[in-house]
This record gives sequence, C-alpha cells and structure tokens, in this order.
Amino acid sequence: MRYAAITERLQGLGGAKWEVHAMAKAMAQTGQEVIALTIGEPDVPPPDELLDKANAAMRGGRVGYSNGRGEPGLLAALAARYTKRTGRSIGPNQVMCFPGTQTSLYAVLTALVGPGDEVLVGDPMYATYEAVIRAPGAAPVSVPLRPEFGFRMQAEDVAARITPASRVLFLNTPHNPTGAVLTREDLVALGRLAREHDLWILSDEVYEELIFGGSFTSPLDMADLAERTIAVSSISKSHAAPGFRSGWAVGPGEFMARLLPVAETMLFGNQPFIADMTALAVSKPSPVAPGMVERFAHRARMIREALHGVNALHVHEPSAGMFTVIDIRATGLSGEDFARKLLMEERVAVMPGESFGPSLNGWLRLSLTRPDDETAEACRRIAAFAARQMEM
Amino acid sequence: MRYAAITERLQGLGGAKWEVHAMAKAMAQTGQEVIALTIGEPDVPPPDELLDKANAAMRGGRVGYSNGRGEPGLLAALAARYTKRTGRSIGPNQVMCFPGTQTSLYAVLTALVGPGDEVLVGDPMYATYEAVIRAPGAAPVSVPLRPEFGFRMQAEDVAARITPASRVLFLNTPHNPTGAVLTREDLVALGRLAREHDLWILSDEVYEELIFGGSFTSPLDMADLAERTIAVSSISKSHAAPGFRSGWAVGPGEFMARLLPVAETMLFGNQPFIADMTALAVSKPSPVAPGMVERFAHRARMIREALHGVNALHVHEPSAGMFTVIDIRATGLSGEDFARKLLMEERVAVMPGESFGPSLNGWLRLSLTRPDDETAEACRRIAAFAARQMEM
Repeated sequence: MRYAAITERLQGLGGAKWEVHAMAKAMAQTGQEVIALTIGEPDVPPPDELLDKANAAMRGGRVGYSNGRGEPGLLAALAARYTKRTGRSIGPNQVMCFPGTQTSLYAVLTALVGPGDEVLVGDPMYATYEAVIRAPGAAPVSVPLRPEFGFRMQAEDVAARITPASRVLFLNTPHNPTGAVLTREDLVALGRLAREHDLWILSDEVYEELIFGGSFTSPLDMADLAERTIAVSSISKSHAAPGFRSGWAVGPGEFMARLLPVAETMLFGNQPFIADMTALAVSKPSPVAPGMVERFAHRARMIREALHGVNALHVHEPSAGMFTVIDIRATGLSGEDFARKLLMEERVAVMPGESFGPSLNGWLRLSLTRPDDETAEACRRIAAFAARQMEM
Repeated sequence: MRYAAITERLQGLGGAKWEVHAMAKAMAQTGQEVIALTIGEPDVPPPDELLDKANAAMRGGRVGYSNGRGEPGLLAALAARYTKRTGRSIGPNQVMCFPGTQTSLYAVLTALVGPGDEVLVGDPMYATYEAVIRAPGAAPVSVPLRPEFGFRMQAEDVAARITPASRVLFLNTPHNPTGAVLTREDLVALGRLAREHDLWILSDEVYEELIFGGSFTSPLDMADLAERTIAVSSISKSHAAPGFRSGWAVGPGEFMARLLPVAETMLFGNQPFIADMTALAVSKPSPVAPGMVERFAHRARMIREALHGVNALHVHEPSAGMFTVIDIRATGLSGEDFARKLLMEERVAVMPGESFGPSLNGWLRLSLTRPDDETAEACRRIAAFAARQMEM
C-alpha cells in the first residue's frame, strides 16, 4: 500500500527521541525503582478550582459542539489577557483555541509554510519542533544557540542563515531545554531582521509563567513586530494542566482569518467545558505557578551545587522553565550513551541532549519537577556514574 | 505577509457552508424564535454515568500528558470492541485515538494522500469532506450518489472515475446527509474495485449506532478488505457526547505505525480522563442510542407524512442517522435560496443541500433532533412556504 510523503518525512522524528524515557517507564512498570528526570510534568495537581469549574460546566451542559475558533467566553478572556500584556487592544478575532501548544504550532506552521520554505529555529530545540516544521513540507534551518550567550538566540547567527526561502523565525522563550529567556535587546535585534526580510515570528511562550525572577518580553508585545508575530501558549505548564490539552494562538486578525478554515478542517472545535475552565484560569494569576517557580529554581541551584565542576561536569543555569542542561562532554560519552548507561547502572532516567538537536550532543537535560530528595539522590548517582567514566 | 498554499485551498470550504445556521443562531441570540433544524446535535445529554466517570478520573489525577497513540485502557477497550465486531483479532496497535471523527479523518488522509493524488468520495458528502481531502493537497473526485439507488454508492459509478491517481475510496456509512446505509452487496462490489486498483478504503462510521432497524456492515469487517480499510468513529453521536471530542481510527497495524508520528506531531496526545470515560462508553451498548434511533426514525416518518407530495416536495426516507433530505426542485428555488428565504419568512432554519455538494442543489437537509412539536410546526411552515413559491 502507498502512503503520503509526510509519513517518510516524520519517520524517526517521533517516539525515537523518547526512548530512554520509555525504557524508564517500562522498568518502573515491572517494579524497578527509577528516578525519572526525563519529562516535565508539573509537580502539583491542577488547582481544584479549575477541576470544579470543568466539572460544573460539564454538568451544566457545556458538552455540545463548539466551533473552529473557540468558545466566545475563552476568546474574550484571552483577548483581555493579551490586551493587558501587550498594552494594545487585542480582539477575539486575533485569538484561536487549540488542544495544546503542540497543535497550535502544527496548525500555525501548516498555514504559514509549505515545500521549499525554510523555518529558522534554534538548536537545541524542543523535541517536536523539527517534525512540526517538516510536517507541512518546510525545512528547518538550525540557528546555533551558544552556551556562551546563555543559549539566547543571537541576531548575527540568524542573519548568517537567512535565504530567499526563509519564511518564519521560530522562537521559544522561555526556552526548552535550556531555560534561556530572550531579552528585550535580543528581540529588538531579531525583530529588525524579521522586518528586513519579511519573516513571520512564531513565538512559543508556554513557559512564560515559570520565569526564575527575571522579566519576560514577547515579540508580540513590541508594537513594530505585532503585524508579523504569532504567539502560542497553553495552560499545560502555568496551571499544571497538561492533560486538559488547552492551548491557543494569538496574532494578527488577517492571519487568524486565514488559519480558521485550517482549524475547522483539522479539529471541528474543542471541549466547551474545558474552554470554560481555561477562561477562568487565564483571567487571573495562576495559583500554582509561583510555587513551581520557587521549587524549580531551588532544584536548579541544588543540581548546580551538586554537580557543577564535579568530575568535569558543567551545569548550565536556567533562567526559567522545568529543566536544566548539563555538559557531560568531558566524560567522553555522547548524551545518548550517558543516558542509557546511567539508566541501566544507576536507575536514573534523563534525556540525552541529542533529542533536542545536534548542538546538544554530549549534554543531558534533567527535569526539575521531582522532589528535592529524589533530585539530590539522582545527583549523587550521576556524580558517581561520571566518576566511573573518568576512571576508564 | 505570505501564507501557505493550504490557506488558499481551504478558503470558502469552511464556515461559508454554515451561513444559514450562523444566521439562525444570531437571530436566536437577539431573542427571535427560530426552529433550528440545521445541525445534528444529539437531543439528549450524555449519560450521567459517563460524566461521573470523566469527573472521577479527572479528580483521580488523570490529567497528565498522554501519548500520541492513546491511553492503554481506551486502546484495549476499542481493540476488544472491534475484535468482537469484525470477528478477527484487532490489537491495540491497530487503533489510534483522536479528538473526534473530524481529526481522525484529517490525520488519516494526511498520512495517505498528497498533491497529485485523488480521493473518490460520494456527492452529496458531509460538509467538511472536501476540505479534509484538499488539506493535504489531494483532489476530491465526486462519485454521484443517486436518489434512485437510495443514495448508496454504486460500484459502476466509482469504476467510471478511477484513474492512475486514485488512492482512496472514501465511504460514509451510515451517510450524512442522506441517511443511506451501504449493504454487504454494495461493499462487495466496491471492495472488488478497491482491490483491483489498490485503493485504500476510508470508512466514516460515526452513525453506526443510529440505524433505523436495518443491519450495519463495514468494509473493516470483511476479511478480504481489512488490509486496506481504515474505519473512523467517535462517541459524539452514539453517546450524545460531541463536546468531548473523543474519536478514533482502526486499521492495519502497518498503517497505524506510519500514522503515529503524524499524530504525535499534530496532537501530543489527548485527555486521559476523557479517554477513561470513552473506554467505559465503548465497552458496552450505548444507553442513549436506542432512544435516539426511535425518536429520529419517528420524526423522519413524521416529516415524510407531512411533506411528501405536498406542493411537489419529495421527501427521501433515511435508513439511519440524524437527518432527512427533501427535494425542493419543483419550487424552482435553489436549496440556498429556499433555506435563506425560509429562515427570513418562516423562522425555520435548515441546511441548503448545496452545502453537501452540487448534486444536492435543490435539496434541503433537515435535522431530526428537535422535539416532535417543533418538527411538526417546522413542517407546517415549510409546506406553507413551498405553497407560496408554487403560486408565484
């Protein structure tokens, strides 16, 4: 039987990156104790208030068909939120709801690019980005994110890679896996390039509310970039609610009008009761984000104190998010080999840096979402494992 | 700013078809009383047992990330259901979960076809089919569904339209908008063509449980078509639960392996608590489907008795589903004109046949989901309106 070319393009871009995570899960299911620092599940449940709202809405009949754009109440709540954040009037016609940030990215890129188009994207990048760019037939063009610049994308690195086929500058701030947050100066420089070369800016801001102290700037909030910027986000991280699959895109009204038939064809609307819950969530500060910020920042410091300089490991300091990255190149192992052997020998599961792009080969990504004692124990085992590699 | 070609392909294929429905909704919101027979929302709430299950699962922590294929419990429940229905062993690897039938169709066609490929599809067809075929760049090839054959797709009509570019035979049984149900003999003849020309069969079976007395046959249940058939469905109709967006695709394991990276990239999983509710729903007969069947079949008879032969209207008899179609060509009006004027003059909203393809120009689709008294009143107003057209 014959398949569409997309199935070739996406082969190997899916589950393969999560192999260590899957192995750890399988080991845990057979009763083995594994400390899993692979994925970034929030470490608290979603606020009860949101569950109550979802349940009340579900019982109250909010279980019929929605529409391709989103429930009016949620669109209004998001418009109000972004009006406040940007300081400009953002209308409901500039918002569209999707089942999560991932689907928002998929739909937005589907509407922006096709075969022959290039998308400039940082390397390292979140594990699904290559696939979401390749899905509509476009090609990712990797822009190295350099540790010496705190993994913040530099305009000169972008400029060197712009071609006539460049269409989209794909940003992720705060950044997964490195926890980097773009500064206003970074965005001014990147935005100038985007205007000069008529690029769209796609900004994944799902970690916006998990910043460790510093301030957040979005290209959407800069008036001279608003006409070309689409921001995507969700309640998955901010409200510890990844399993509700509730996200959105915000951008120019004209773009949203173009996107609407794509969303209608792809999804036929989302769950009204989840929309009601999300409207409540985004209409005020998250009750759970500050606690996560405190705990994750604390664990990032713990890991740095426990491992930085130990056995030639180098621990990067994240500015936000749920992860920290560790340079393990001094051990002579690839991230992949380190992660596999660490799981087998020490029962600690971490993500190989390679899952996030070739520039993170020889690095690991550790989640900050496990309790302090588990995190401390994982650090002890990682140090011991690294010491053994140095002795070989 | 530049957009992807898909935004051109899908323009006009989205909301425009639902214009009369949208007008009726807007009129209702301004306090005007409109009898809306446009869309097919189930006329009962979802079973309490399912809401209880969803809430319990949500409270029980089933709100974390899922995976691209679906929750193991739901995959097992669907595998068991289709094993029973087909009489063959269907494994969880042959099932994939999606947020509704629409997304199932979108994902499956994305994995099957691309530019240059043709999809054979009945005309009339459900309003989103053209868009879902054009989204990945394929072309729909309309196979006329003839009233004289009860709108059941005839193999000779398909055979006349097969070309070297044909890839998929897209079936919908029971059929929306006509309520036609393909017989085993229909499927034997259609399946022979599919084998001869190496076509995939995509079967939208969302109305499977709403058949008015007759029996249901799926190409998936025919052993010699199983290797080339993908069936899609959901709990939207069977369990009166459209707002939960819970659907699936069932088909060959090799196809599902190809589809998985597409699903992972597009969706990143669904809601675990809705998966648990869906697993409960599909593991036993629906408590609400028999009542809907009884009421919808009764209203189809009511409408036929009230309007067939009245003012030269011709009412088709549906065998299943939530709709009936009426031939209004004798009035000299298009379906579009009839529906708009009927809404303005009589405050009755129905779908123009044209929304479902050119072959249904001069027809209307009426939903069977409104209470008997409303339905009867709508028929009186339609008869009066038709009478006035005949006098002109």
